[in-house]
Formats: sequence, C-alpha cells, structure tokens
Amino acid sequence: MFSAIGTPERQHSNRDRGQIVRNSNKVAIIERIRLAGDGISRAELAEALVLSRSTVSTLVADLLAAGAVLEGGAGASRGGRRPITLEINGAAGRVVGVDLGASHLAIAVADMCGDVLAEVEEPLAIEAGPEVCLRQIFTLVEATLVRAGTALAEVKAIGAGVPGPVIGTQGIVSAPPIMPGWDAFPIRQRLEDYWHKPVLLDNDADLGALGECTFGAGRGETNLAYIKLGTGIGCGLLLDGHIYRGVLGTAGEIGHVTISESGPPCTCGNYGCLEAMAGGRAIAQRAQLAVKAGQRTLLAQIESSRELTARDVGRAAESGDAVSQQLLADAGRHVGSALASLINLLNPGLVDIGGGVAEAGPYLLDALNQAILERTMLPARQATRVIRSALGRRAVPLGAVAVALTRAFQQYA
Amino acid sequence: MFSAIGTPERQHSNRDRGQIVRNSNKVAIIERIRLAGDGISRAELAEALVLSRSTVSTLVADLLAAGAVLEGGAGASRGGRRPITLEINGAAGRVVGVDLGASHLAIAVADMCGDVLAEVEEPLAIEAGPEVCLRQIFTLVEATLVRAGTALAEVKAIGAGVPGPVIGTQGIVSAPPIMPGWDAFPIRQRLEDYWHKPVLLDNDADLGALGECTFGAGRGETNLAYIKLGTGIGCGLLLDGHIYRGVLGTAGEIGHVTISESGPPCTCGNYGCLEAMAGGRAIAQRAQLAVKAGQRTLLAQIESSRELTARDVGRAAESGDAVSQQLLADAGRHVGSALASLINLLNPGLVDIGGGVAEAGPYLLDALNQAILERTMLPARQATRVIRSALGRRAVPLGAVAVALTRAFQQYA
Repeated sequence: MFSAIGTPERQHSNRDRGQIVRNSNKVAIIERIRLAGDGISRAELAEALVLSRSTVSTLVADLLAAGAVLEGGAGASRGGRRPITLEINGAAGRVVGVDLGASHLAIAVADMCGDVLAEVEEPLAIEAGPEVCLRQIFTLVEATLVRAGTALAEVKAIGAGVPGPVIGTQGIVSAPPIMPGWDAFPIRQRLEDYWHKPVLLDNDADLGALGECTFGAGRGETNLAYIKLGTGIGCGLLLDGHIYRGVLGTAGEIGHVTISESGPPCTCGNYGCLEAMAGGRAIAQRAQLAVKAGQRTLLAQIESSRELTARDVGRAAESGDAVSQQLLADAGRHVGSALASLINLLNPGLVDIGGGVAEAGPYLLDALNQAILERTMLPARQATRVIRSALGRRAVPLGAVAVALTRAFQQYA
Repeated sequence: MFSAIGTPERQHSNRDRGQIVRNSNKVAIIERIRLAGDGISRAELAEALVLSRSTVSTLVADLLAAGAVLEGGAGASRGGRRPITLEINGAAGRVVGVDLGASHLAIAVADMCGDVLAEVEEPLAIEAGPEVCLRQIFTLVEATLVRAGTALAEVKAIGAGVPGPVIGTQGIVSAPPIMPGWDAFPIRQRLEDYWHKPVLLDNDADLGALGECTFGAGRGETNLAYIKLGTGIGCGLLLDGHIYRGVLGTAGEIGHVTISESGPPCTCGNYGCLEAMAGGRAIAQRAQLAVKAGQRTLLAQIESSRELTARDVGRAAESGDAVSQQLLADAGRHVGSALASLINLLNPGLVDIGGGVAEAGPYLLDALNQAILERTMLPARQATRVIRSALGRRAVPLGAVAVALTRAFQQYA
C-alpha cells in the first residue's frame, strides 16, 4: 500500500532505512570511543547512545573486524564482572594536519588516536600566492611523513587551515584580506588532485577552536571562542557543542569587527576594524610610526636595518622598552574591547587566546583582561574563563588533525 | 550478564530505553506535523524522520487517541492512493504569550495550531518593580483569555519574555540594566505559583527570533538574528536551527557591545555601549540635549511641557524636523556598525529588525543599512538579507506563544 508513495530520489525502503541508521550508529560508536579516550565498555556505549546492548555488540563486531577499534584491558567493575573496554586502533591509519598561516607553515602527522608522530614548522609568505605556497606544502608534508616514519599510502584524510574566510562547500577562500591572489583559487581541489586523499579546508581559527576542544583546555566545553592573534585576527567558535560556521562558512571574522567608527583603514576596505588597530601587522606599522616620529625606543636600531615586526615589539617590550610596552597595551585594550562584545553577545564558557602575538608577554594580555573586566556585563563575565591557549601555536595544526580524524572515521559508515 | 552494570541512576533497561525512544519519536512526529503546517501523511513522516512506517502508524494512533492530532483531508497523490494527512488539533488546548517590555505589556492567546485568538497591549512601567508589574500581567492575561472566549483551565503552557538577561534554568533575570528592582526576583516561580501552569521565561529578543522563524520572515532560515530596537537594544539568535542562549542563557546582549571605547556611560556601568548611544532612551536624551543647546527643532515645543521620548523624535522627523532626522540617522549608523560586526562574526542568512524604535521611519533604517554596507566583509554581506520585521511589535508575543506550544506538546511524550 505504501510502496508507490515518495518520489524516487527521496524514497527509502525499510531496508535502506535500517542501513542508514546502522551506519550512523556505527559512526556514533566510534565518536564515543574517541571521546572516552581511555577505553569504554559495550554496556557504557549502550547507555550513552540509548541503544540496545545487542545492537552495540553487532556494530562493535563490525568495527573490530574492520580494524577500526581494539579490545583493551578490563574496565572498572561496577558490581559485576569487569567488562572489556574498547579503544581506537591508532595503527589503523594516519592523518595529516596543515596549518597555512600568513607567515608560517606547520604540518602535523598523527595516528588514528590523534597521537602526534611528527610536527614541523617553517616560515612562509602567503603573499607569494597559491602556486608557490602549494609547492611548499607538498614538500613539507612529504618531509613530515618521512619524519613520522610513515607513507602517504597510510594517510586516510588531510585537514588544512587557512587565514581567510573559507566557503566550506566549495573548498575556497572568498575575498581574503590577508591572502592576496588566493580569492576563489580551488585550494581543496588542488590538494585532493595532488594527494588523491579527502581534504577538508577550513578557516585556521575554526581549526584552533576544534584543536582546543579536542586536545586542549576546551575539553568538555560546549561554548568556546578561540581567538587567533597573528598577522591578522581570527576567531573560531564552538557553540552548543559544534563548530559554528554560519550560512556560508565565513563566521568568526572578529578581526573585522568595528572598534572605532573613525579608525584607520583596514585591508578589507573598511575603517576602524580590530585587525587594523591590533593585528600583528598593525602593531608593526605603529612601531614604525613611533620610530619615524622620533620616540625614544629600542626599536629605532632595528628599524634602521630592516622592516619591524610584531615580534620585534614583543622582544623590545620584554627588554623594558616603554614605547613597545605601550604599543602592546594599546593592542591588548582594543582586542579586549572586541572580546567583551563577543562575551556579551555569545556568553561563552571559555575564551581561549592563541596565535603568535599572544606570545608577546604580559603587556598585551594584561590590558586585554582589564578591558574585558570593564566592558562585560556581570552574569556573562562571571561565566567566562579567559585563558591563554595551552596548545599555543599547535592549536591550529592539531585542529586540522582533529577534522581529518573525523573524516577518516566516516569510512566505517 | 549485563544487568549488574551501570550505576542505578544511569541504568536503563532495554524496556525503559524503548520507552525513551518512543516518547522522543512521538514529540518528533508532533514537531514535524507542526512544521508541515497544512497536513502531512504518515508516509511522509516516516521519510522525514527516518522511521519505519509501522512505528509511525503506532505512534500516530496514540496521538490521535490523545486528541493531539487530527486526520485531515486527503493529501496530494504521488502515484498511488491519495494518503490521509495529519494536522495539529487546534482545539486541544490554549497557550498564552506574555511580552513584558520596558514600557509596554502585550498578551497573546492562541490555540494549539498557533492561531491567535486574542491579542492585547497596554503601557507598563518596568521600573515600578516586580510586584506591581506582576499584578498588571495577571489582570491583563485574564482579560485576554476572556476576549479569546477561553478559560485558564484550557491553557497548557505560558511563555513570557522580559527585556533583560535571563538565567533560564533559574527563571530569573540577572543584573538587568533596564529592569531596576528585578535582579534575581523569582519571576518564573511567581508566575507558576499564581497560574499553576508550566511557565517558560526567556529574553524578549530571543522570543522575537523564535517568533520570526516560526510565524514571520524567518521561516526556513537556520541562521538568523532578530534585533529589538526599543528602550534598550536586544538581540535574539537562531544559530544552526536552534535558539542560541550561551552557557548561562544571557547571550544576545548586543546593546552592550562597545561602539566607541570613549563613549558615554551606560546603565550597565560600562562606557560607549550601543544602547547608550542608540537605544530609545539614548535617542530621547540626545533630543533633550539638542533642545537645551538651543537647536532649532519642533521638539522644543513638546519639551517645554513634558519629557521627550524616542517616539516624539520619530514623529518630528516625519514632519521634516532636520534635528530629529539627524538624531535618528546617528542612531541608525551606530546600530548598523554593531550589526556589521555581528554579520562579520556570525555570518547569518537574515537580520530581522524589530522593536518600537525600528518603526521610526526611513531616517534610522537608511543610515543603518548604509553602515552595514560599508562595514561588512564581502562574502558575508552578500549572504545576509537585512529586513525590517514583518511581524513588527507582534514578534515577541508570538515567540512567547511558540515557546509555550513547544512546551505544551511535550505533555504527549
């Protein structure tokens, strides 16, 4: 009676439907085993996923046969026989995480447990354009695989982060302010064509958020903002337990939040953006201006031989240079204002500050914290921990590893 | 073998587990019938929810017996016999929506289909404090029920919105800037004690977002921001299909986003907040200052007899008063800057502008749109429609109806 109903492309037989449910349950079981980390029993899986124990046993048998999971030692007894625990089989494959920054390239190779086997970082100039940067990525990934003692054939999936607004469905960046020459370049396609592996392209700050909540200080948080203070300023959002990307995938552009309606011009074409007032490039430019204006600063000596960087300002501040300390405090205050707005708007449990500029020491972070304290509303302020990223520069490559792992485990669906 | 495993409070037998799944499927079926609006067949329900047809038939039989749903006319044929469609039984009960504003109180009574039976609005002074306002709510709800031709006994649930940061789990507002005397007052408890009905307390702008995506221009959107421009400025967020509340429930405080680091003091204790520069109260205060400063304006005459309001400024602007037009344009520009930041940060598909101040005409909205155009990044800007709320002042009470309906249908779980 029902068989004639439903257009062909939407129609599932009861048998198809059963297969869809079984496959999605299989992936849910793997994700739960990943989450548990140090082993979980079949009974605990059934509890957690509201599945019958026989269903769990059948699906786990499939996963054991496929080599995706292993039986580990006996778990803790809760009254009866100590149950056998299940864990991810790390040796089932490898994943690669790529962190393409504006001025650096970092690669991580990990096993299926997310244990990192090798990590490498080197300078890169994003403005050299996609062809040059892609060659550098290919070379460094190969070198990192060698260092990890593994081969491309073992790699199940690759995650890659870039410092611009990513249109996820298309695998491109769209009008990226600090990536001249990359607009609409088919990044994901080119990487997949080269490696013949699934590649996931994402915004670097989104991956930082994922790295922090998978491997870092954000474990267990459901609402988290990861702020990447680098050449540019980006933000990755974990909202209600999921990375939030918005309708196109470009969410998180906190660097282009207006801090001062009459502020300086930004690379994005607007005025008074946070990035134009407090990004690494802005800090360097302001340092340059301070030197040109004849201010007494240790930076003058460096500036006479080459262009100043935000790192120079950080080092000079540490050596007691008052001008550099003030430059960092100003930047910190601006970032703090933007973060206070984010806290008022999104009421996150954790704000996690990473990126190279966050390593510039206390002058920036003290001012940042002070501005947050002054500019957040009471209940949200008390609910939000603001910390410096525990993973540091590793948050983005580890987030790329995390996204590659999730993709790799989908092969068992 | 498995029966000894699991702590007592976490342990479900296979039978319990079946019941949990059945109940959650029953609620999913009702939600799907609600969403469909004008009827959906059992086969379409099975398709949409990836359930077997026999499961759907069993659960639908329960819902028919409980009077929650009705069999309607025959649906469209897709090749076979035209199937019988299911719809919500509007007469199964009533719900009430309460919109407690800073200066108004609106009540809506609806049937279980969400069809409004009566709607009433009157002025209210939130600063009179909770006891006075609660009595006014009780009286006006009673009057609206009478007008709707129904009795309290028919009411299944009540939704209530308030213009402050709501701690949902506790049913209170916390440190609400424009609700002096309400901090930590047990609003939900007092309403439940009086009516002996389930009450859901929520931020008014959150309910506005829910109203727009249930009954208004936001139908079908997954990522939407509803902006309430009133005495204060609030924001409700629908992100990835769910109302986003943050870790405490206070998300959406766009009124306290910093627009100018050195701006005027705000009721929240900070400086340069959007609300302090562009809220209804700020517009009125600026109008007052313009008159005091001796500017040539129609407002001077009104000001000599009583305190100015934002509504006066709107009316004077419509009559061609240049000072009032400029005041509204300034406010619009500030709101537009904050919305541009929100668009860059959250990449929504729709920004829906409601609240009394949005009704002040084109001067505010033109400047608002211009600022958004100037200050958003390209891909996000193109993906976002910015519109004036189609529901207008009804968005919040209708959102309160929507949240009450969802609660009311949970009784069938």
